Amino acid sequence: MKGDLTTLSAVEAAQAIRDGRLSSEALVRACLDRIAATDDVIRAWAFLDPELALVQAREMDRIRKSGKAVGALHGVPVGLKDIIDTRFMPTECGTPIFAGRMPEADATIVNRLREAGAVIMGKLSTAEFAYLHPTNTTNPHDAAHTPGGSSSGSAAAVAARHVPLAVGTQTGGSVIRPASFCGTYGAKPTRGLIPRTGLFRTSATLDQVGGFANTLEDMALLIDVLGCFDPTDPDSFARPRPGLLDGARATAPVEPDIAWFDLPFHDRLTPDAAAGLEAVIDALGARVERFPAAPQLAELVGVHKTIYDYEIARQMAPINTEHGNRVSPEMREAISRGHAISDGQYQDALGVKASADAFFTGHFNDFDAIMAPSASGEALPLSDGSTGDAVYCTIWTLAGLPCLTLPLLVGDSGLPIGVQLIGGVEEDDRLMRTAAWVQRALAAEELTEEE
Amino acid sequence: MKGDLTTLSAVEAAQAIRDGRLSSEALVRACLDRIAATDDVIRAWAFLDPELALVQAREMDRIRKSGKAVGALHGVPVGLKDIIDTRFMPTECGTPIFAGRMPEADATIVNRLREAGAVIMGKLSTAEFAYLHPTNTTNPHDAAHTPGGSSSGSAAAVAARHVPLAVGTQTGGSVIRPASFCGTYGAKPTRGLIPRTGLFRTSATLDQVGGFANTLEDMALLIDVLGCFDPTDPDSFARPRPGLLDGARATAPVEPDIAWFDLPFHDRLTPDAAAGLEAVIDALGARVERFPAAPQLAELVGVHKTIYDYEIARQMAPINTEHGNRVSPEMREAISRGHAISDGQYQDALGVKASADAFFTGHFNDFDAIMAPSASGEALPLSDGSTGDAVYCTIWTLAGLPCLTLPLLVGDSGLPIGVQLIGGVEEDDRLMRTAAWVQRALAAEELTEEE
Repeated sequence: MKGDLTTLSAVEAAQAIRDGRLSSEALVRACLDRIAATDDVIRAWAFLDPELALVQAREMDRIRKSGKAVGALHGVPVGLKDIIDTRFMPTECGTPIFAGRMPEADATIVNRLREAGAVIMGKLSTAEFAYLHPTNTTNPHDAAHTPGGSSSGSAAAVAARHVPLAVGTQTGGSVIRPASFCGTYGAKPTRGLIPRTGLFRTSATLDQVGGFANTLEDMALLIDVLGCFDPTDPDSFARPRPGLLDGARATAPVEPDIAWFDLPFHDRLTPDAAAGLEAVIDALGARVERFPAAPQLAELVGVHKTIYDYEIARQMAPINTEHGNRVSPEMREAISRGHAISDGQYQDALGVKASADAFFTGHFNDFDAIMAPSASGEALPLSDGSTGDAVYCTIWTLAGLPCLTLPLLVGDSGLPIGVQLIGGVEEDDRLMRTAAWVQRALAAEELTEEE
Repeated sequence: MKGDLTTLSAVEAAQAIRDGRLSSEALVRACLDRIAATDDVIRAWAFLDPELALVQAREMDRIRKSGKAVGALHGVPVGLKDIIDTRFMPTECGTPIFAGRMPEADATIVNRLREAGAVIMGKLSTAEFAYLHPTNTTNPHDAAHTPGGSSSGSAAAVAARHVPLAVGTQTGGSVIRPASFCGTYGAKPTRGLIPRTGLFRTSATLDQVGGFANTLEDMALLIDVLGCFDPTDPDSFARPRPGLLDGARATAPVEPDIAWFDLPFHDRLTPDAAAGLEAVIDALGARVERFPAAPQLAELVGVHKTIYDYEIARQMAPINTEHGNRVSPEMREAISRGHAISDGQYQDALGVKASADAFFTGHFNDFDAIMAPSASGEALPLSDGSTGDAVYCTIWTLAGLPCLTLPLLVGDSGLPIGVQLIGGVEEDDRLMRTAAWVQRALAAEELTEEE
């Protein structure tokens, strides 16, 4: 194939490899070249061994030539957040405590990618233990800005076209926010859709798997590949699961209904983000129904924090003790806050969470999606020392709802700003269908930058 | 829907349920009624709780009405050979030793069926520990004859239209032979395609999962649903896997080439079976190439027996000792034979097996499939006390090749006789495509009974 192979979407690349118009080796080499040319500045990769990637690519090419089965991501390189265990690559979780750590088994989702024929390209930088302390990754749009966190390298690598797809995780806003900051699609599907076995755990209640892509169909395909039942993850379920790619390609029977909640923390939005979101709402006209500030929703931010602090403290304290207090100040504070939360306060928070789940179940009888900010605005300068504010994501993560950010807006500094859509539990296909409709509607309004 | 719902194929039923033309509850009730009317004679079921099946059916109907995802077998009842562990149904392995045994977890393939939306109908009678000692199941075509073994109930239940699909296992010929005797499709895919975790093990080297159906597409769909990677089964693999349903629906780019080996044990075929097979070969004309008796192939029958006896003896001896020598005479003989095999003889047999694997890999560069008998002829009378001769299947099972029996012939007593097709490793899709071609070619020749 001619042209820059790193501009191919995963769907396009997989089709070209399937058809014999492209080899996985050529695609992986193009990606490796692009990484070599740009990662000195971006620093997305925590581990990358070009030969290990090429060995897999040549094996996928051999399988295809043999006439044997090819997978949905056959020969397509995928990057993994470095809290996802891999047998043949170190998994260091963004901390010197785990330097050189080699897991004994691949995470379940790594096996899913291998079943789909994907090439495991390497490991992507993460905030320390997927929490707050930043890695040294920079934003591909402007190296003076954060890519967001905690899935920093995953968002940056996809934005920089190092790989068409990357896997991340979200406990607060660790997929949606970096995707918004880096101008990629980002999705965290329904809690339990993707199993977490073999991933570093910070919060059994809140941790969820997601991913990054440069097209809506790629986003959907990645989630489809990762999803499966794993009896060793208590959130996982053995029921029929939504087909996201079919959803992204479907036409809604009627135009969707979208809800917008005016939430108290929206006053923290930067003016360009607020104006951009208002313009999107205006463009969609009667399809968006606006609800006043709902105090019971805002309360959920605190509930999320209680559960997260309580659980991460109990996960991290033994590790910190064992490794001589080598965790970051951010993590030490979380441990300290978490230990100050009583079992009763924690149980109360879980109770409120359960009522919120029920509230949202009812809500999606009347609406196809909720629209919300993905982040406060453009990516923050690195000098702020923060990966950004997760508050725009925590409510939806808490409720286990599928979340998707679309790279629709550009801020005053020319950096991307995402728009978030949230769907009903186990209705990830409907969310994808709604997102495709929104994109078409906005393109027709010439609002999007793609036009 | 009108008419007898038990005549629907699984593909038809799943589509009707998806479209809202049929409820899972109605389908399951129709199947339960048919079982109630006929299982006194057939005795296919080792465990059946109608309410447990109906609860699942109603849940699948509820999911569909909610607008949530439906699976490939949504609401379709499936029966399981009673060596497949189920959490909410006993799993007794055809032996009083395991009476009332309740496993702690579902087998991996049970979870796969649940992910596809299938209704786990109940447990189907098996020969003792999936070996030789028969269960009391009768052949639905003539109750004076065996249904074959060891997956006796699975074959009988599908032939009797108790369920459109059933799962079985094959270590020698325990899927292909009962399918041939009962006039159903039967398939055992490539070794490792379907994981065995949660199944009673007789031979780690030889045990493989398969299934029964009344149409080729149903057969393919069932195998597609069951296949997945499971790291706890050493034969399982995390590579792209063939899509059998796509294969069954595909048109071959050219007419296939089929090989037939004249094997020494073919002199044990009954005259009607031998004549029927010759007629099939004649009808396919130049597409079948005939090879003389290959002594190195015939030798593999003994290699299979050495490995099977050696391994089953080591699996069964501790169980027999623990349970006061309560296994059948057939099993005691196997244990005794197995203990007489030295480690060296066993290792030699594994070595010959490895060369056979390599031989077949080369073979399928030139041929799409091997054609072979599925069994010696019609089902034997129950008075023989045998489930039939596995010799026509053991070579292919040994080599881990995908095997498929088509219900193409009828014997002198009016009982069905299958024709076996064997494909290349991990080319189960190509085997299905070839089988579909064979069926079309024979239908055009008016050889099959369907015309």
